[in-house]
Amino acid sequence: MTPPTTPDAVLRQCEALLDADSEGVQASIAERILGGYRGLDDAGRRAVLIGLGRPLDPVPAAVVAAASAWDHAQTPERLQALLRATKPPRRELLRRLHLAHGATRALVDLRRDLLVALGDEPDLQRVDLDLRFLLRSWFTREFLELRRIDWTTPAFVLERIATNEAVHEVSDWLDLRARVRPSDRRCYGFFHPAMPDEPLIFVMVALTDTLPTTIASVLETHRDALPEQDATMAVFYSISNCQPGLRGVSLGNFLIKQVAATIAADLPQVTTFCTLSPITGLAGWTDEPAEDPAVQAAAYLVRARRDDGQPLDPVARFHLGNGAILDRILPDADPSPRGMQRAFGTMCSYRYDLDHVADNHHVYATDRTIVTGPAVDALLRGAAGR
Amino acid sequence: MTPPTTPDAVLRQCEALLDADSEGVQASIAERILGGYRGLDDAGRRAVLIGLGRPLDPVPAAVVAAASAWDHAQTPERLQALLRATKPPRRELLRRLHLAHGATRALVDLRRDLLVALGDEPDLQRVDLDLRFLLRSWFTREFLELRRIDWTTPAFVLERIATNEAVHEVSDWLDLRARVRPSDRRCYGFFHPAMPDEPLIFVMVALTDTLPTTIASVLETHRDALPEQDATMAVFYSISNCQPGLRGVSLGNFLIKQVAATIAADLPQVTTFCTLSPITGLAGWTDEPAEDPAVQAAAYLVRARRDDGQPLDPVARFHLGNGAILDRILPDADPSPRGMQRAFGTMCSYRYDLDHVADNHHVYATDRTIVTGPAVDALLRGAAGR
Amino acid sequence: MTPPTTPDAVLRQCEALLDADSEGVQASIAERILGGYRGLDDAGRRAVLIGLGRPLDPVPAAVVAAASAWDHAQTPERLQALLRATKPPRRELLRRLHLAHGATRALVDLRRDLLVALGDEPDLQRVDLDLRFLLRSWFTREFLELRRIDWTTPAFVLERIATNEAVHEVSDWLDLRARVRPSDRRCYGFFHPAMPDEPLIFVMVALTDTLPTTIASVLETHRDALPEQDATMAVFYSISNCQPGLRGVSLGNFLIKQVAATIAADLPQVTTFCTLSPITGLAGWTDEPAEDPAVQAAAYLVRARRDDGQPLDPVARFHLGNGAILDRILPDADPSPRGMQRAFGTMCSYRYDLDHVADNHHVYATDRTIVTGPAVDALLRGAAGR
Amino acid sequence: MTPPTTPDAVLRQCEALLDADSEGVQASIAERILGGYRGLDDAGRRAVLIGLGRPLDPVPAAVVAAASAWDHAQTPERLQALLRATKPPRRELLRRLHLAHGATRALVDLRRDLLVALGDEPDLQRVDLDLRFLLRSWFTREFLELRRIDWTTPAFVLERIATNEAVHEVSDWLDLRARVRPSDRRCYGFFHPAMPDEPLIFVMVALTDTLPTTIASVLETHRDALPEQDATMAVFYSISNCQPGLRGVSLGNFLIKQVAATIAADLPQVTTFCTLSPITGLAGWTDEPAEDPAVQAAAYLVRARRDDGQPLDPVARFHLGNGAILDRILPDADPSPRGMQRAFGTMCSYRYDLDHVADNHHVYATDRTIVTGPAVDALLRGAAGR
Repeated sequence: MTPPTTPDAVLRQCEALLDADSEGVQASIAERILGGYRGLDDAGRRAVLIGLGRPLDPVPAAVVAAASAWDHAQTPERLQALLRATKPPRRELLRRLHLAHGATRALVDLRRDLLVALGDEPDLQRVDLDLRFLLRSWFTREFLELRRIDWTTPAFVLERIATNEAVHEVSDWLDLRARVRPSDRRCYGFFHPAMPDEPLIFVMVALTDTLPTTIASVLETHRDALPEQDATMAVFYSISNCQPGLRGVSLGNFLIKQVAATIAADLPQVTTFCTLSPITGLAGWTDEPAEDPAVQAAAYLVRARRDDGQPLDPVARFHLGNGAILDRILPDADPSPRGMQRAFGTMCSYRYDLDHVADNHHVYATDRTIVTGPAVDALLRGAAGR
Repeated sequence: MTPPTTPDAVLRQCEALLDADSEGVQASIAERILGGYRGLDDAGRRAVLIGLGRPLDPVPAAVVAAASAWDHAQTPERLQALLRATKPPRRELLRRLHLAHGATRALVDLRRDLLVALGDEPDLQRVDLDLRFLLRSWFTREFLELRRIDWTTPAFVLERIATNEAVHEVSDWLDLRARVRPSDRRCYGFFHPAMPDEPLIFVMVALTDTLPTTIASVLETHRDALPEQDATMAVFYSISNCQPGLRGVSLGNFLIKQVAATIAADLPQVTTFCTLSPITGLAGWTDEPAEDPAVQAAAYLVRARRDDGQPLDPVARFHLGNGAILDRILPDADPSPRGMQRAFGTMCSYRYDLDHVADNHHVYATDRTIVTGPAVDALLRGAAGR
Repeated sequence: MTPPTTPDAVLRQCEALLDADSEGVQASIAERILGGYRGLDDAGRRAVLIGLGRPLDPVPAAVVAAASAWDHAQTPERLQALLRATKPPRRELLRRLHLAHGATRALVDLRRDLLVALGDEPDLQRVDLDLRFLLRSWFTREFLELRRIDWTTPAFVLERIATNEAVHEVSDWLDLRARVRPSDRRCYGFFHPAMPDEPLIFVMVALTDTLPTTIASVLETHRDALPEQDATMAVFYSISNCQPGLRGVSLGNFLIKQVAATIAADLPQVTTFCTLSPITGLAGWTDEPAEDPAVQAAAYLVRARRDDGQPLDPVARFHLGNGAILDRILPDADPSPRGMQRAFGTMCSYRYDLDHVADNHHVYATDRTIVTGPAVDALLRGAAGR
Repeated sequence: MTPPTTPDAVLRQCEALLDADSEGVQASIAERILGGYRGLDDAGRRAVLIGLGRPLDPVPAAVVAAASAWDHAQTPERLQALLRATKPPRRELLRRLHLAHGATRALVDLRRDLLVALGDEPDLQRVDLDLRFLLRSWFTREFLELRRIDWTTPAFVLERIATNEAVHEVSDWLDLRARVRPSDRRCYGFFHPAMPDEPLIFVMVALTDTLPTTIASVLETHRDALPEQDATMAVFYSISNCQPGLRGVSLGNFLIKQVAATIAADLPQVTTFCTLSPITGLAGWTDEPAEDPAVQAAAYLVRARRDDGQPLDPVARFHLGNGAILDRILPDADPSPRGMQRAFGTMCSYRYDLDHVADNHHVYATDRTIVTGPAVDALLRGAAGR
């Protein structure tokens, strides 16, 4: 059967899907819908997304009635009725769409479209609410598989790594080889069994015996590699999401911790786990570099806050939210045009002390306390002194 | 950290889990809870399950308020608030428990306990509501892997097959080999990536050129196997669930259809897909065998109905609900003590016509029409004539 | 093309194979020959083997001429001519037979027939000379793959282990499971890439913290397994060849040493590697048990020699030839009928001290010195004292 | 133990290896020898190779004596003695060297050195005689594994393909991808279990519906790929050896036939198997292009012969020797500088008709008859007419 070719036709199939009683039938309608959606242009897709919005909301009268019944007596039957009345039909629709072959991949892609559309159509938040809910249940930690990526990895996976490396662009295969093949480099990614060929997110790690002072020294393609057994430090210098449709489905948090645990088990002499991170928002916060860029960067990272108390800097929010501490400021670590433009060449390092991440996270989560290392403390005292 | 050792201690950890803000912390509390639960005896476990019931229901006043707000204006924010207010905290608790390593397996086992407890404590239905909901989202079709099980399969998987074969017991390894190794035998199972070593459900198939008239001829260990290329018929003679904790999470439906499609692709000359099935409820329905057992069995399967219109016979409900037709009655097909006891030795055959299962399912689902083959029609006319 | 069906027809194809100039043609004739041979009965096979004997010997006159030429001048060309003249055409024939698909397996089986036929036809030694030569070059150490065999091993491999266990028969699958699955049991086998499904030879190992005093305690199916980390000793209690056609192609020697090295790498606290071995020839050497069976067994193993100076006992020849030492005599270790019949219930233990096997081997190889442990020394002094 | 560091020291270890009686000891001496050899410079390696020559020849007097004994009576014992006396000790030495870990790889590399040295030292032919003999027995067809190489292949294998492609250089990874990833391209290689990561030889194939008229159209990186099912022709446009040390060990012959059989099984509508081949020796045979380059090329390929009757052109010798026919001459198929330089831009196509390769090979092997297709026949008549 050919897939529907207009937004209206796709939406009519969605109604049919909600009416179908057999899982076999549901699966074949779901394949038509996803095929039809894929065939539409941007405007057509947006029309479908809007059609999944308000018309598939829970019915207010039914919600009120079920709530009232639950208020009168808390029986399992009334709970079931309440959940049924409040569950958006859209959620059931999405669940049935997942019966199609390849639906996990298709729904991740649909969410990518949705996130784009959300900019113009905030009303689509209702669709995202349900879709994100389902994606979270499917991309749960227990189903993620950590795989090392190296020079024995199939070429097509490496090609995706090269394409998706967002932090420090990969220029060609020699460059890629320099990041995954030497004895003092590691790359790990999360994969999902329903999308086995697609890395979801990956992290690049340099094994060193001292904190690198520039990113260029890490990315250098012609280096003498450090023998594995001489490494004492694992520096996470890049983490990239490959699936825009999974934004907000937390993966990076677990990835860093699981990779750290894996490296610690393989190489017991590696005891320091830290990052080499950009300070992406510094130049947006101040107009010009201060006399002492390290002091300025420390002040920005620790004191520039959003209304909710979290730091302005998005990379800081990610690592501090994971329980890392702000350990070092590294002036002149990235003198590339991009590095100069966003932070006057300054980078920083967050440290993951596996024994304290839970505590660090807790104080950050409860009152937004940012734990800092002694070197940063000294800089902050300097800043305070001015 | 040692796991809690009393039901109260486990439940206190559950509260802590709901309070924890970091996923890392949640994961480690979750492991303690599941470890503690596993260490309890039956009574202790039941106390925990009850503690997950009423105390973790949605709060009526909050539900009513959110429903009313939604009734007044249908904004995404109010929808989110409604869903939050009606979602039982228990469901969030279960989701967080899933962060523990090995939690999929542990929660399937917990549901097995729950299903046992439900007999005495119908109030626990509220817990099952949420647990079944989560298991369905995790054991979704897209995540199931169909694997052929044969004589190259690892021994420990075969051992589980032997242990779990519920329809026709496996007596020893020779018997097992006779079911999976010959060229005219097939066995397939569904596996899940989070429980890779555990078959969830499996089906045994005999490839034949004619419908067997007795189950003994199928189970015979010393047979001349039919060359694969001479087979025209695939007879599903046994389907067994390995996970009691997944009752009600439909797997068998997809298994039969996917196995039929796989065999049809491998062996195009196999065009008939049918079962050799017990009539488990016949002797419970009538006291003694009729003069013509085939007529009696046909009448039972088609006419003995429950209040909801579905057949009394559970095997009939399963296959007819999948869109199969009741094709043949087979008197004297199972003269074993068990076969005599439940159906006076009579068995039957359901047929899956892949082109018509959707239609058959539809008429069954809408008005409980049971589609029958000509041989059964003739028997039913005989029954009517009396 | 159908394979030849008489010995003469097979031998005519052998001539054709020696005449064929293209490897493609050779491969297809080779398949016909091996297929034809397989189809013959024992007498027919023997006729073929005899046909491969004298008629395919090197031609004496040509040998003498080439030898004389080589004697006059040692040029590469004359060396090549010498080697060509002395190489039996039979060896080239066997090499070309190896072009057939599955020929490795077929030639191993052919040698099994040959070894049987040799008893009556010593003249066939000439065929064995060439066949053993080729088998040795194909079953060279570098091509053997050591695989652990456990409860995750495919059933059909386990079935062969059960069938081929020659030292202590496997009674059923429970018995087999008890030998490969517990944490304190190991089984390893050598496999060859051209016969990937066939173990060639395998060894059974018990991990213990003390030398077992009876074989029954090792074979017991209902035991409490020793936790892996508590084991300090690896006891090789059985080694079995699966391929009679590979007799004389040394595999066991490397197997024991490679398994010992593998275990030592996995479990560093295991530092003693020894055997629990039958004394297969004791009762054949003496008529009745001595007053002190341990003294008698020690005397037999060390002093009963063949004309070539090696011990009479074949198991002793194997282990001492490998560089093991005779470490312990174990009276009453095997009170089974077979154990009583061959050695009045006495067994012994050889020890592999990985640091000294080369030296032990050397003194054994040069002057047949048998290295013994202190316990055996004491027994021998006792024997001498009488 | 450290490896020997001078040629003399290496050669002394070789003597020790021939004296050693235990396989375990032999294995460890072998590792020292190969390690020592690897550590030498070119002159040192050559000194070792020379040391393996004459000094390890069979002893003339012993050869003559054994030949005479065999001449007098043809017993198995005398045959064994003859073979022992004529076998160069060098061959036993090489066999024992193979006991070292990684020896297959090391001996292939040693032969690469030997082939280079042979140019200056023809006397080393005696060493090559024995080494080639052993390599042939190890790289026998039954042990070779055919693997498809595509975009799922590990990067390091693809890197070797890119490096070793000798016929049409691979410029970068995009170029490589264009050769292995599209639906109408295939690449297959032979691998050996003792060198699992190393392709030995590989062939590149274009699936087409017509014979390409230029090599550029095949190598084009931005093409619309032909859907697999529309292909009727498999064009082998490149075959490259990766191991110089395996020269003279026939692999290419079987590779082409096995790949053709594999493609024929996968894609039954592909019925023509041919090559797009360079004419490497044309410009060396004639000084300038003729008026009609196709006529000239046909005449060269068919009529320009060596003393042994085989064609002058090495590529022609390879394919005709395999049983292919010379099917087409393709003027202007390779206007690249290299193509112009060696054959004035002309290429040709050999065709493998799987039903006739044996016959074609036979007439070529017996009287050097070259089978030609009608198009070439016409050109040859044109040539004759001048």
